[in-house]
Amino acid sequence: MKSSNTFLRQTPDNGDVGHFCYELAAKLFPICRSLSGPGVRTTLTLLGQHLPGLTVHEVPSGTQAFDWTVPEEWTIRDAYIEDESGERIVDFKTHNLHVIGYSEPVDQWFDLEELDKHIYSLPEQPQAIPYVTSYYSRRWGFCLTHAQRVALKPGRYHAVIDSELKKGVMNYGELILTGQIEQEVLLSTYICHPSMANNELSGPVVTTALARWLMSLDDHRYTYRIVLVPETIGSIVYLSRNIDHLKRHVIAGFNITCVGDDRCYSYLPSRAGNTLSDRAALHVLKHIDSHFQRYSWLDRGSDERQYCAPGVDLPIATIMRSKYGQYPEYHTSLDDLSVITPTGLAGGFKALQRAIEVIENNVHLKTTVLCEPHLGKRGLYPTLSTKESSAQVAAMMNLISYCDGKHDLVEIADLIGEPAWRLVDILKPLIANALIGVCGDCAG
Amino acid sequence: MKSSNTFLRQTPDNGDVGHFCYELAAKLFPICRSLSGPGVRTTLTLLGQHLPGLTVHEVPSGTQAFDWTVPEEWTIRDAYIEDESGERIVDFKTHNLHVIGYSEPVDQWFDLEELDKHIYSLPEQPQAIPYVTSYYSRRWGFCLTHAQRVALKPGRYHAVIDSELKKGVMNYGELILTGQIEQEVLLSTYICHPSMANNELSGPVVTTALARWLMSLDDHRYTYRIVLVPETIGSIVYLSRNIDHLKRHVIAGFNITCVGDDRCYSYLPSRAGNTLSDRAALHVLKHIDSHFQRYSWLDRGSDERQYCAPGVDLPIATIMRSKYGQYPEYHTSLDDLSVITPTGLAGGFKALQRAIEVIENNVHLKTTVLCEPHLGKRGLYPTLSTKESSAQVAAMMNLISYCDGKHDLVEIADLIGEPAWRLVDILKPLIANALIGVCGDCAG
Amino acid sequence: MKSSNTFLRQTPDNGDVGHFCYELAAKLFPICRSLSGPGVRTTLTLLGQHLPGLTVHEVPSGTQAFDWTVPEEWTIRDAYIEDESGERIVDFKTHNLHVIGYSEPVDQWFDLEELDKHIYSLPEQPQAIPYVTSYYSRRWGFCLTHAQRVALKPGRYHAVIDSELKKGVMNYGELILTGQIEQEVLLSTYICHPSMANNELSGPVVTTALARWLMSLDDHRYTYRIVLVPETIGSIVYLSRNIDHLKRHVIAGFNITCVGDDRCYSYLPSRAGNTLSDRAALHVLKHIDSHFQRYSWLDRGSDERQYCAPGVDLPIATIMRSKYGQYPEYHTSLDDLSVITPTGLAGGFKALQRAIEVIENNVHLKTTVLCEPHLGKRGLYPTLSTKESSAQVAAMMNLISYCDGKHDLVEIADLIGEPAWRLVDILKPLIANALIGVCGDCAG
Repeated sequence: MKSSNTFLRQTPDNGDVGHFCYELAAKLFPICRSLSGPGVRTTLTLLGQHLPGLTVHEVPSGTQAFDWTVPEEWTIRDAYIEDESGERIVDFKTHNLHVIGYSEPVDQWFDLEELDKHIYSLPEQPQAIPYVTSYYSRRWGFCLTHAQRVALKPGRYHAVIDSELKKGVMNYGELILTGQIEQEVLLSTYICHPSMANNELSGPVVTTALARWLMSLDDHRYTYRIVLVPETIGSIVYLSRNIDHLKRHVIAGFNITCVGDDRCYSYLPSRAGNTLSDRAALHVLKHIDSHFQRYSWLDRGSDERQYCAPGVDLPIATIMRSKYGQYPEYHTSLDDLSVITPTGLAGGFKALQRAIEVIENNVHLKTTVLCEPHLGKRGLYPTLSTKESSAQVAAMMNLISYCDGKHDLVEIADLIGEPAWRLVDILKPLIANALIGVCGDCAG
Repeated sequence: MKSSNTFLRQTPDNGDVGHFCYELAAKLFPICRSLSGPGVRTTLTLLGQHLPGLTVHEVPSGTQAFDWTVPEEWTIRDAYIEDESGERIVDFKTHNLHVIGYSEPVDQWFDLEELDKHIYSLPEQPQAIPYVTSYYSRRWGFCLTHAQRVALKPGRYHAVIDSELKKGVMNYGELILTGQIEQEVLLSTYICHPSMANNELSGPVVTTALARWLMSLDDHRYTYRIVLVPETIGSIVYLSRNIDHLKRHVIAGFNITCVGDDRCYSYLPSRAGNTLSDRAALHVLKHIDSHFQRYSWLDRGSDERQYCAPGVDLPIATIMRSKYGQYPEYHTSLDDLSVITPTGLAGGFKALQRAIEVIENNVHLKTTVLCEPHLGKRGLYPTLSTKESSAQVAAMMNLISYCDGKHDLVEIADLIGEPAWRLVDILKPLIANALIGVCGDCAG
Repeated sequence: MKSSNTFLRQTPDNGDVGHFCYELAAKLFPICRSLSGPGVRTTLTLLGQHLPGLTVHEVPSGTQAFDWTVPEEWTIRDAYIEDESGERIVDFKTHNLHVIGYSEPVDQWFDLEELDKHIYSLPEQPQAIPYVTSYYSRRWGFCLTHAQRVALKPGRYHAVIDSELKKGVMNYGELILTGQIEQEVLLSTYICHPSMANNELSGPVVTTALARWLMSLDDHRYTYRIVLVPETIGSIVYLSRNIDHLKRHVIAGFNITCVGDDRCYSYLPSRAGNTLSDRAALHVLKHIDSHFQRYSWLDRGSDERQYCAPGVDLPIATIMRSKYGQYPEYHTSLDDLSVITPTGLAGGFKALQRAIEVIENNVHLKTTVLCEPHLGKRGLYPTLSTKESSAQVAAMMNLISYCDGKHDLVEIADLIGEPAWRLVDILKPLIANALIGVCGDCAG
């Protein structure tokens, strides 16, 4: 049996976490992020103001990471398309998405026909600028609304991209919050998306709020490893540097993305599908929104692809609001600050906070007496047996009946149809009366 | 391989078991039973007249049993409420339920307002006297029909309860029917409910009939342990005295309750849910009434709470007719002898008898030849192969095809969709022809 | 890791396999087959013309095989019923089914009443001659259409069956196609049914076509054991002679029957239900006809009864078109060459060929790199990331994500909802680029 000082933690009042997240997202929105470059560094600096202890790492271009190579660092200063009259008809200054991510520089006049080969637009969303990148193949290009594109008249155009691709570094942030034990919960989000809100400023800001909540606690059982990486290459690099440690220590974790709008909740499993992270996510979502969208591993599309890859096999699940690829504004300029809301962000935060609490509290429990305990003599049960009395205490009796040392809290909660956090309240007096014990071998 | 002399037992004609049960219940109905006291002893004496070998045990008040203490013995001689005119407007002699079980004595005049604090009634069932007890907290009180209660006029009332609570004993009955082997089937019922029929005189009388049936057999494989205890404290005391033996020997068993009406069949699982008792109960009920009510462990409410508690973990399931808490007359004076019927009791008896037979016959079976046996040469199969002939012997061939030594009789019966008792008839000639053998390691 | 020279085999063009099968069936149709005798030998000789290496075995009458004895050899030369005018009103020469299989000889005049005891017909199919046999009990009899039967007028009839039952042999054919490894796939069909097309000439002719396809391959991983036996006694004899070898070597196989009509596909499981054969059959049928009929072990009726019997336990499943017993012409003269079609036979062939390919290709696969491989640099992935690009390569990425060395090809194909043969195409470049390896311990 183990001290229950961290067990049975109460959720603190989260204050105005939705507005905190929204305002931080608004501040980060204009920055032009990519896999690397000054936009990522500015972003990490701003987040670091709220995350004391955040370490910003540098990985040199050309570094090998498993099957991948860190690409050159990309800097973009300006970009536009000018017509013959000298009017800037497309201007990077008006929206970061107007330039393909990792565009090589260009400064040249083209006929419309030639220029058009370098233009990307979405005919079905004529008011949206698409988000396009070409990290590993040298290209240049402009992304326009389809309305802009069809309005282009035949003629000559001056295409200018003042960008630079050169050996440099790729950056990522890392924050370790040491807990009572060495086992870790991994929270990962990505900081490479320029000027899009739900995917992906919601992830970094909600992750920041979660880290601040964890730092505010007296203590916590698990050590929390919070990483802010560029998507794909960032998580691959992070894994290549830490895989042995991660495989030994990480017992749960979440890829935090698309947690900002207020339209639905979504769940995407780990590859294994039945890890503690999956169980906690499903348990929480079932109780906070029984209509949550349930996706399969085949619907994946973010860093769980790396964290759960064969041979990596970390227990990383994903809790989202509207999932990437599933809402109309996805990967376009329409995914702006009007898509996310303080309520939506607070909901994403709360779902992840609940999941973390469930993981923290997910001990195995065991009764200390054989047969049902005599609760009446301790004032925990009505002393009068009437036709109705037993119903009043059903949840407590059901909980006790499964405290056999074999079921953990999530299993018991699912068996008896109650949220784990309600059981925590019921357990307090039972543990205080030494009727239920926490199994040491399960608590870590 | 083992002798099949007990295997393949035929169910005897049960005669008029329904009337036997009903008449015994009628004789027991007027007795005022409780956790302890003379009513329990009278009940055990009457049942003992049909159960030679029944031992009545005494447990002194104050005895510790796990987390519980045996309460004082309760004796009640008389009780009534008199109005100012001396009329007895409520009289224990007219119904045992008029007094709260374990009421302390009182003999005092009260204003109606004061008296009313000691009155219990059911507004939604105005003609029913509720069943109320207060075993572990000293109280006194009267239970009235709501019609009686609302008819009480303001004024003074004389409340008299001539009861006694003092150190004494708690009684329970125990009957062991020794079988061929030491492994045991536990049949438990409770004898603490005053003047209610389905819950709970049906349990004691059907259990008595089952014991008499078992005693009438030439022999039986398992040893039968039949216990008649006061609910909760009785099973806890019984477990505290016998738990090591029970955990080593009991391979199946049933808590026998609510087996007297004729409205439906019900099943409540053991906590584990997949014990031999559960499998036998489900198999029997599926074949005798495919519309039986299936409850979950969360719906429990009788001594399975103790027998299946964490660390006790006996394989005890429950087969009922209308389950406690689920029929309107439950725990009121309406649960009288009109609720139970000879047909209802005979049905409860038959379901439990079938389940016991299934358990007795539940051996693993194995063919003695490779490939299908040549049944035709033994006269067990039509010698003419026509378009229809194979259907006639489908059940026999299906049975043989699963006699691989890995499946027991219940599994095979479920796999091929036949009741186990039909398979017993089919097996007889196959075993007689030495084509199928009974696995010794499974039969015990 | 193992050479992939047999893995990833392409299905060759099967040419006009349907017509090959149909014409071979038409040639075999008139022969009067039974458990033994000249009809079986003629059949094996004709099939052997297409199966170089086919060995025809002889088993003497009276040979014991497990619980069975090989019956005497049956020869039939002529049979008829003559009326008083000398007209042959029933003539074996017009249809082999007119005589009960294994009829003993008769040459005698009877009154209609006496003759009628030896006549079999189907009142509900008045134009059909039923198929009736009496292998193990001496009888004689004629099978008539019910129309013929009811037209018989009172009078004297001359019944003649010029048959012979005497010590001789039972024959069966066996062809071994040696593969790279000793593990075997068993293909079994039966050659004892006279003059019926779907059940059972489709089995022998499709099996012949499958053997010819296998012989046409450069090589194959598994050794193929092809057996053509009389049903029941033939498979029992074959098992009794080969059971130890078969149990050690056979990893999959099919009983090939009823593969000739074009009305549906059907699946009947092995007794275990989850063998490689079952998994391959279900996978293939799901993708070639999602409406296939799924039967249970309880619906069995052919040689799987022996191959999957307790203690034999070979992994033999059955892929059919219209299953025996389930189509109106079954076991009557109506099951003629109009029931089967080249398209139906080709479909039966193709389903079994696909299942064999799936078994040949069913290796465990493992990625050679941690995290997702960088496919773009190898030209295997679009270099431009747009809103649509990832969908195009979803099947490839899904496949890679499950190449963890724990799942075999069928499991992966089922997990990602693709036919295994599509995955084979996707795997080729991945294996060629050394990104995916074949696990040696699984490939044999």
